[in-house]
This record gives sequence, structure tokens and C-alpha cells, in this order.
Amino acid sequence: MDMELWYTEKQTPDFGIQAKIGRTLHHEQTEYQSLDVIETKQFGRMLVLDGMVMTTDQDEFVYHEMLTHVGMNTHPNPKRVLVIGGGDGGVIREVLKYPSVEHAVLCEIDGRVIEVSKEYFPKIAGALEDSRVKIRVEDGIKHIEAHPNHYDVILVDSTEPVGPAVGLFQKPFYQGIFEALRPEGIMVAQTESPWFNRDLIRRVYRDISNIFPIARLYTASIPTYPSGLWSFTLGSKGRDPISLREEDLQAIHTKYYGPTLHHALFRLPKFVEELTGKGEA
Amino acid sequence: MDMELWYTEKQTPDFGIQAKIGRTLHHEQTEYQSLDVIETKQFGRMLVLDGMVMTTDQDEFVYHEMLTHVGMNTHPNPKRVLVIGGGDGGVIREVLKYPSVEHAVLCEIDGRVIEVSKEYFPKIAGALEDSRVKIRVEDGIKHIEAHPNHYDVILVDSTEPVGPAVGLFQKPFYQGIFEALRPEGIMVAQTESPWFNRDLIRRVYRDISNIFPIARLYTASIPTYPSGLWSFTLGSKGRDPISLREEDLQAIHTKYYGPTLHHALFRLPKFVEELTGKGEA
Repeated sequence: MDMELWYTEKQTPDFGIQAKIGRTLHHEQTEYQSLDVIETKQFGRMLVLDGMVMTTDQDEFVYHEMLTHVGMNTHPNPKRVLVIGGGDGGVIREVLKYPSVEHAVLCEIDGRVIEVSKEYFPKIAGALEDSRVKIRVEDGIKHIEAHPNHYDVILVDSTEPVGPAVGLFQKPFYQGIFEALRPEGIMVAQTESPWFNRDLIRRVYRDISNIFPIARLYTASIPTYPSGLWSFTLGSKGRDPISLREEDLQAIHTKYYGPTLHHALFRLPKFVEELTGKGEA
Repeated sequence: MDMELWYTEKQTPDFGIQAKIGRTLHHEQTEYQSLDVIETKQFGRMLVLDGMVMTTDQDEFVYHEMLTHVGMNTHPNPKRVLVIGGGDGGVIREVLKYPSVEHAVLCEIDGRVIEVSKEYFPKIAGALEDSRVKIRVEDGIKHIEAHPNHYDVILVDSTEPVGPAVGLFQKPFYQGIFEALRPEGIMVAQTESPWFNRDLIRRVYRDISNIFPIARLYTASIPTYPSGLWSFTLGSKGRDPISLREEDLQAIHTKYYGPTLHHALFRLPKFVEELTGKGEA
């Protein structure tokens, strides 16, 4: 009988997932974090940073589409787009689906994530070769400080709020994003699980509500992320994503997001709506 | 250092969850299945049948509300309601929230599930003491055959499609439900994960579409179920759940379902909508 190898991730001290694996394709300790690529039987190749799943071949489409399209499709004419984090290139790939985009800047602090993703996740990272893409291996916080009133859409594709990404969940960072955005600018950040990270979501939503005239929370199903349910928080200087008619939304080639889903996203289950301080209960 | 005990469930041959546990509160082999109650740190008490999580203290509200309220709230006047399976009593508890209900029948093949749930899950099973509830420890298939044109709403709260529940995922069973329903009758069945059970959902949706004039698919986030995303398939002889106005829906005391969520449920992610044969992609 063959040896069985299993990846296990404690998503909380008391709960986790396990995935049967074939071989480990890559392991290194970068300047910032441990970086692994493993081959899982259930979800294909899996990118793991500091022992936490970042993306997999099979379910990557959900996270990358849902971080990108709600904000991009709400903006009337997104030309300059910044992705903070997201070294695997998946969000950039989705951003490039909009013909209006002139510059898509990837600002990733760890250049090794980009290089390893290009090697092992060509369907995700391949978009980084596009001529509209500019790659900056630097701290996102410094990048936005250096670019006031510059971007139309800023997407925050961070790791968990430990280690290098702690500052990406703080109010000064969101204030910096506000200032880096042009009029009508929109930001969206990944904001963890409505089951396991309720205090964090409440705090981020309040911070973004206090900085932007419009804040919205929405979720998506991501089976390899803690609890399987993930949240995203949007801040807008201009349009409200729920004010758009379905026919105003661009039909983008996707597997999860779509114009008919767009509005429904903001009709939240009560236990999630509560996190915005506007629950019906 | 204390010993660590972990429950693990292979949700597929290649993927699973693990939950840290305190003590095992109950174990037995019933006539039909193994039945365990364990104390988990993350989700509180957990009911496990044949090694698969059925419900937990912390997330039970999602499954029980979502199997119940979409159909119950769509029916104009549900008086006689049948729950097939569901021996823990959670669906019955939700059904009893409608003042129109005169009889709520629980038809559970394994009486031990009912008894053990009463002992270890009083907040879930307590509703079984209500005078409107009738408990029948018998095969759901035989029960519906014996009650033609009798029920207003039938809710199928089955275990997975292995072992005692196999027949509850077959077309003749749905045909039997159709015949056991009165005019305007509605059924809802739990139909597994849109990530892991795509062929099953496609088949059940097609079968229910072929029997009922109206079929609808919807999902909910349940972190202890495989993939964290769960599907429900509704068949209706009368009203279409998406045709109702928000003001026509009853406001029920819930933690997940609500009138504002009701319509949004049928705006599915594309990879789920595909399973109905009506995807936009």
C-alpha cells in the first residue's frame, strides 16, 4: 500500500482542513514567509504561505473574481488599477478583462511569490506578462503614499492579518487608499471569514464606513478558506454597487460572478449583516 | 501537556475537516447507523452519524432555517407539514414558528436519533415536545405512500445518499412526495455540496423539474458540511418563491434567513446555476 501524505491546516486553534497530497513541488523560506506549492488530489496545485492556503487550481476562480469584479464593474471607467499583494497574479488576470484598463499595477512585497507562481500556476500568473501590467516589488503602504489621487480602483489581496500583512488591516492604510484614489475611486479588500473573524470584519467595516461615503460587505464560497465562507469589504467615493441596474453591468467571462449575482451579493444572511451594524434582527 | 483529541472526517476520499474535541458524550450502534455526540471546542456539541457531521450547536441554525423557511414562507397557508428524517428536531423547531401550522409530523426511521438528540441537544430537539408535533418512527417512503394529497409542505432532512438514505435521492421518492402534497404543496430537500456533489445535484434538479411545475435551487454557508456550501432543491405545485414580494413574506425570528435574503438566494453563482441547466455562461 502506498504511503499517504496529508496537508493539514489549523484554520483556528480548534478547527482545520486536511487535503491528501501527491508530492510537494516547491518549498522555500523567503525573506518574508514560508512558501510551498503542493499537489493536492481534491483541488489540484495549492499555494501555501506560512502554512495557510492562498489559492488552488480548482477554486481560485472564486476569490480572484469576487475580489475584482464587484468593484471594477461598479466603477464607470477604471483606467488605473492597483493590486496590493496578490503575487500569484489571479486578481490582475481578472482586472485585465476590462478594456478600459490602461495600467494594472501589482504591488507585492515578496517577489518570490510572483516568481514561484509564474512557474507553478501559469493559468493564474500568466496574465502578469501582459503589457499593461507593471510589477512593483515593494510595500503597498509606501506605494499608496507615493501615489496620491492616482488610481481608479485599488484591490487589497493580502494574506491573513498576521506577519507581513498586519498593516493592511489598519485604519491608516484605508485612509491612505482613500487618498490614492481619484474621484469615483473604489477599493475592495479581502476581509476574512464571517464565522471565524467577526471582530475583524466589524472593525474594518466601521473603519471603511468612516472614511468612504459608501461601504458595502459581501461574501463568497471558497472551500479551501476557513469556514468555506469569505468576506470582502468595498469602499466607494462615487457609485454605490447596489444602485446599478443589471443592464449597466458589463458581462465579463467568469465562472462565479455575474450581473444577475451582483445585486444579490448585498442581501446578506442576518448573522453576516449584523457585522455592518445594520442587521434586520 | 494535556492529550489532544481530534475528530476527523474525510468528506471526500481526498479532503476532510478536523475539530479539536473535549470528551465524547455518547456512542452507540443503532439498528441503522453509528451515532455519536462529541464536544468540540470550535462548534460546541456535534451530532455525528456514520462518521459524518449532522449538526453542531454553533452552526445548526443555518441548515435548519434554510431547509425550512424558503418553502414555508412561499406556501400561502401551510397547515400540515411533514419532515422526513431530521430526528434532531431542528427543522420541526423552525416549522413551528408559523402560526398556521396545525400538525408537524416528524417521520424519522431511527428512533435513537430522536432520543439522543433530546438528551444532548435540548435547544434543537426541545420543540419535539410541542403538542402540534407527531412523531412517527418509520420509513419516510412508506409514510408518504400512505398519505396521498395530505400535506402542504414536505421537508426532506436526510443523511448523505449512502446507507439508509439512498432511496431519499431517487425520482420515485420525489414522485411520491408530489402525490402526498395537496394543491399548492411545496417540497424542499437538502441536496449536498455544489463543489463535491455536482452530478447528484444535476440529477435531483432534473427529476424535481420533471415532476413539479416549478423547481428552484439555492445554497447556504454551513462550515461543518463538506466544502462549506450546501444546496437545497425546492419543488412547488403552486407559488414560485421568486415571484413573491418582500412584503408578502413573513418576518420570522431567525439568524440566517430573512425576507431581504429570500429573493437573493435564487441569484446563484454561475458554477452553481450551471447545475440547473439554465446557466448564463
